[in-house]
Amino acid sequence: MAESAASTKELEDLQEDLREVRDLLRRHRLVEDLVSRQESAKQERVESPDQKRNAAELGAKLDRMHPADIAYILEALPREERLVVWDLVKADHDGEILLEVSDSVRESLIASMESHELVAAAEQLEADEIADLAPDLPDDVIQDVFQSLPLEEREQLRAAMSYPEDAVGALMDFDVVSVREDVTLEVVTRYLRRFDVLPDHTDQVFVVDRDEHLKGVLPLTKLIVAELDDQVGKVMVRETVTLYPDDKAHEAANAFERYDLVSAAVVDDKGRLVGRVTVDRVVDYIRERSESEARAQAGLSEEEDVFSSVWASVRNRWAWLAINLVTAFVASRVIGAFEGSIQKLVALAALMPIVAGIGGNAGNQTITMIVRSIALGQVRIEQAKKLFAKEIGVSMVNGLIWGGMLGVIAYLLYRSVPLGLVMTAAMTLNLVLAALMGVGIPLAMMRLGRDPAVGSSVLITAVTDSGGFFIFLGLATLFLL
Amino acid sequence: MAESAASTKELEDLQEDLREVRDLLRRHRLVEDLVSRQESAKQERVESPDQKRNAAELGAKLDRMHPADIAYILEALPREERLVVWDLVKADHDGEILLEVSDSVRESLIASMESHELVAAAEQLEADEIADLAPDLPDDVIQDVFQSLPLEEREQLRAAMSYPEDAVGALMDFDVVSVREDVTLEVVTRYLRRFDVLPDHTDQVFVVDRDEHLKGVLPLTKLIVAELDDQVGKVMVRETVTLYPDDKAHEAANAFERYDLVSAAVVDDKGRLVGRVTVDRVVDYIRERSESEARAQAGLSEEEDVFSSVWASVRNRWAWLAINLVTAFVASRVIGAFEGSIQKLVALAALMPIVAGIGGNAGNQTITMIVRSIALGQVRIEQAKKLFAKEIGVSMVNGLIWGGMLGVIAYLLYRSVPLGLVMTAAMTLNLVLAALMGVGIPLAMMRLGRDPAVGSSVLITAVTDSGGFFIFLGLATLFLL
Repeated sequence: MAESAASTKELEDLQEDLREVRDLLRRHRLVEDLVSRQESAKQERVESPDQKRNAAELGAKLDRMHPADIAYILEALPREERLVVWDLVKADHDGEILLEVSDSVRESLIASMESHELVAAAEQLEADEIADLAPDLPDDVIQDVFQSLPLEEREQLRAAMSYPEDAVGALMDFDVVSVREDVTLEVVTRYLRRFDVLPDHTDQVFVVDRDEHLKGVLPLTKLIVAELDDQVGKVMVRETVTLYPDDKAHEAANAFERYDLVSAAVVDDKGRLVGRVTVDRVVDYIRERSESEARAQAGLSEEEDVFSSVWASVRNRWAWLAINLVTAFVASRVIGAFEGSIQKLVALAALMPIVAGIGGNAGNQTITMIVRSIALGQVRIEQAKKLFAKEIGVSMVNGLIWGGMLGVIAYLLYRSVPLGLVMTAAMTLNLVLAALMGVGIPLAMMRLGRDPAVGSSVLITAVTDSGGFFIFLGLATLFLL
Repeated sequence: MAESAASTKELEDLQEDLREVRDLLRRHRLVEDLVSRQESAKQERVESPDQKRNAAELGAKLDRMHPADIAYILEALPREERLVVWDLVKADHDGEILLEVSDSVRESLIASMESHELVAAAEQLEADEIADLAPDLPDDVIQDVFQSLPLEEREQLRAAMSYPEDAVGALMDFDVVSVREDVTLEVVTRYLRRFDVLPDHTDQVFVVDRDEHLKGVLPLTKLIVAELDDQVGKVMVRETVTLYPDDKAHEAANAFERYDLVSAAVVDDKGRLVGRVTVDRVVDYIRERSESEARAQAGLSEEEDVFSSVWASVRNRWAWLAINLVTAFVASRVIGAFEGSIQKLVALAALMPIVAGIGGNAGNQTITMIVRSIALGQVRIEQAKKLFAKEIGVSMVNGLIWGGMLGVIAYLLYRSVPLGLVMTAAMTLNLVLAALMGVGIPLAMMRLGRDPAVGSSVLITAVTDSGGFFIFLGLATLFLL
C-alpha cells in the first residue's frame, strides 16, 4: 500500500513496455532457456554470461515498474513467458502483484511458488489484503503467515477472513486514523504530523469517543481551511455514511456512487469504529461484479485467462453447455411430439425457429431491464401488476407488428392464408409468454432472495424455445391439419 | 457540488423514505389532484387548506433529503407521481437532481419544465455539469444559459461541450487548485485557508509554473505531515498520471483502477493544466458503461425507465428485434432449402435446433472472454494464431464430448447409427465454426477500430444458427438419404 516511487503510465506506454518485455524475452531466448532448465530436472544449468546479463536487463526494467503495471504485463503474456518474468520480479513486490492480477493468473503464479516464498509475499501485506489472497493460498502457508503476525493483526485477519465475498467486511481495511471530539484542530494537525505518511485514500479522519464509538468525520479539506484553535467537535461532520461489516457490498458501492465518497466508516452493531472502506476497493468491486455478471451471462464459471490451457477452458465452460444441452434436448422432444404434423406440412420445420428465437430475444430485453431496476432497488413486489401490464402491452404491439409481418411472409412463401395466420398468432402468444416470464422470473428470484442477474437468461430462453415450438406446432396441428 | 447538509442514507433507509413519499402522495390524493388540475386546463383550481398542508409536509420532507436521494425516489416512482414530487422539490436543487437521474427520467422531467425554470436550474451548475445536461436541453435554453455565464465559464462550457462522450474531456471538471513549485508549504497552507471549502475530491493540489505547465502534484496527505518550511518542489510528487482531453475515457478509467487514484490532472498538448478528472466521475462512467454494455447485449437502444410508456418501450426495442428477425429469417430459409430431406427423415427437424443452439452458446462463451481481454488491452492481432489454435482445441474437445453424447441419444431415440454419427459430426463442426467466429469477429472489429463489445453476440448467433442448420441438414442429406 505504500506509495510507489515507480512511474505510472497510460495504456499506450504500457503496451510499449509489454512489447519491450516480449522482445527481451525472445531476443535472449530466456523462455527456451527456462524450458530446457526444467527438462534437465533439478540439475543446475550453467548460464552463459550473455544470458545472465540479459536476464539482469529485464529484471532492472521490471524493477522500475509499478506493481499494477507488472500485473498487467503478466496477464498479457502466455504461460511460459509469464513464469519467466515472474521469476525475475524482485521478491519484495510479490505480494502486491499477486493482489493485482486476475484470479486465474494468480493461480498460475502461486502454483509456481514455494511455500516459503508465499509466506514471505503474504507478510508484506496488511491483514485485509492477506484475507483477499487467502482463498488461493495453501493451508500451511496461511497457518505460517498467521503465526508470524502480531496479535492485533491476527485478529484483523481472522475478522476479514470471516466475511463472505459480497459483504462490506470483505472490502474493509483497518487503516483508520481517528481523533477525539474535544481536541483542537491544532492538536489534530500535530498528531497527524507524527505519521511518516497517512494511509492511502485518507480524505477524512474519524472522530470517536473513548470507547471507539463513531461520532463523526473530519474531512481533510475542512481541517486545512478551518481555524486551528477550533475544536474538532465544532468542525466535524456528524451526518456521514456508515456501513456495517455485514452490509451487502453492492449496497455500499451504490452509496459510494450516490454520495461521491472517497472513504466511509465501518462500525459494529454497537456503533464502534472497526474499519473503513475506500473508493479504490469499490472501483475494483464494481468492475469485478460487472465482469462476473457478463461472464455469468455467457456461462463462464470463473475468470478465464486467454492463455489458459485447453483443458482448463473446457472445465470452465462445461457446466453451462451441459445446462443448455438439457434445455435444447427438452425443446427437441417438444418438436419430436409433433413429428407427424411436420411430416404432413414440412414448412413448419422451417418456420418454427423464428417463433422460438424472437421470443427469446424479446424475453431477454425485458429481463435485462427489470434486473437492472431490481439491482438499483427501484422495483418492489407490489409493482408487479403494473410491470406485467406494461410488458404484456409491449409484447402485444410487437406481436402484431412482427408477427403480422412474418404472417405475410409465410403466406408469400407457402401461399397459405391459414399458415400465415397461425404464424402471427404463435408469434404474438410466444411474445406474451416471454413478457410474463421476463417479469416473473426476476421477481420470483428476488422474492426467493436470489440474485436475479444469474440464471435468468438461461431460464427464459429455455421457456421461450420449448414454449415457442409448442405454441406454433400446437396451433398448426389444431388448425391446419 | 457544495457539500449538502442533508443526511446520507443507505438503501434500506432510502426505501423507507420511498414508502413514506408514496404514502403521503396516496393518502392525500395529491396525484388525483394534479390530474384534475391538468384537466381543468390552465384554470387555477382552488386547493383545500388540507391539501395545501399535505403538499407542504411532503415538500418539507424532500427539502431535508440529499439530491441523489431525491433522484432515487424520482426514478422509482411511476410517471404521474414522479411529476407531482418534482413539482414540490425546491427549485434550488433542480440542477443537481437533473444531473443525478437516469437519462430517460431526466427527459421526462425536462419535458415538464418551462424554459425559464431550466435556465435557472442550469445556472446553479458548473460549466462541466452544464455540458453533461446540454444534450437534453432545448437549444434556446442553452443559448440563454450561455449568455448568462461569465467569460471564463463560457470558455469552459464551450470546451466541455466539444468533447465526445467517451473522451476524457467529457469527464473533466475545472475545479483545480494549483500552486507554484518555489513557495513553502506554509504559504500553500495559508493560501488554502482562504478557501471557504476546497473543491470536492481535492486529494492533491497541482503544482504549475508561471505558464500553467504541470510540474507535479502535492498530495494533501503529504502537505499535512511535511515540515511547513519545506518548499513545494521538495515535497511534491513529480511522476503522476496525466491525462489528455482527447484520451479515451475507458483508458482513464483503467488508470484510475490500476493506480487507485482519487483525482488526476488533465493537460493540453503543451503540458498546461486545463482541468482534472475525479474518481466519482470515473465510478459513474464505469457503472454507465457496464450498464450500456449489458443493454447493448440484450438490444435495448437506450436506458429504459421501467415506468416508461408502452410506445417508448416498443421504440427502444424494435431495432434489435428487427435485426434478429432478419437473421432468423435467413436461418429459416436455410432449413427451407432442405425441406425435401426433412420430409424424408422427420427426425432431422427435431434434432437440428440442438446443433444450432449449442453452437451459439459456445460461440458466446468464446466471444465474452476475448472481448474482455481486448478491453483490457491484453490481446493483440499477432496473437491471433495462438488464440485460434486454443479455441479450436476447446471446441474439438467439446464437440467430441457433447456431440458424442448427443450422437448416442439420437441413436437411442431413432435407432439409426448413421443418424447418430451425423449428429456428432455436425455438433463438432458447428462448435469449430463457433470457435473460429468467436475469435475472428472481435479481432476483426478491433482491427476495424470498432468496439467489439457491441454487436459481436448477434453476429455469432446468426452464423452459428444458419451454419448449424446448414451443416447438420447438409451432412444428413449427403450421408443419410
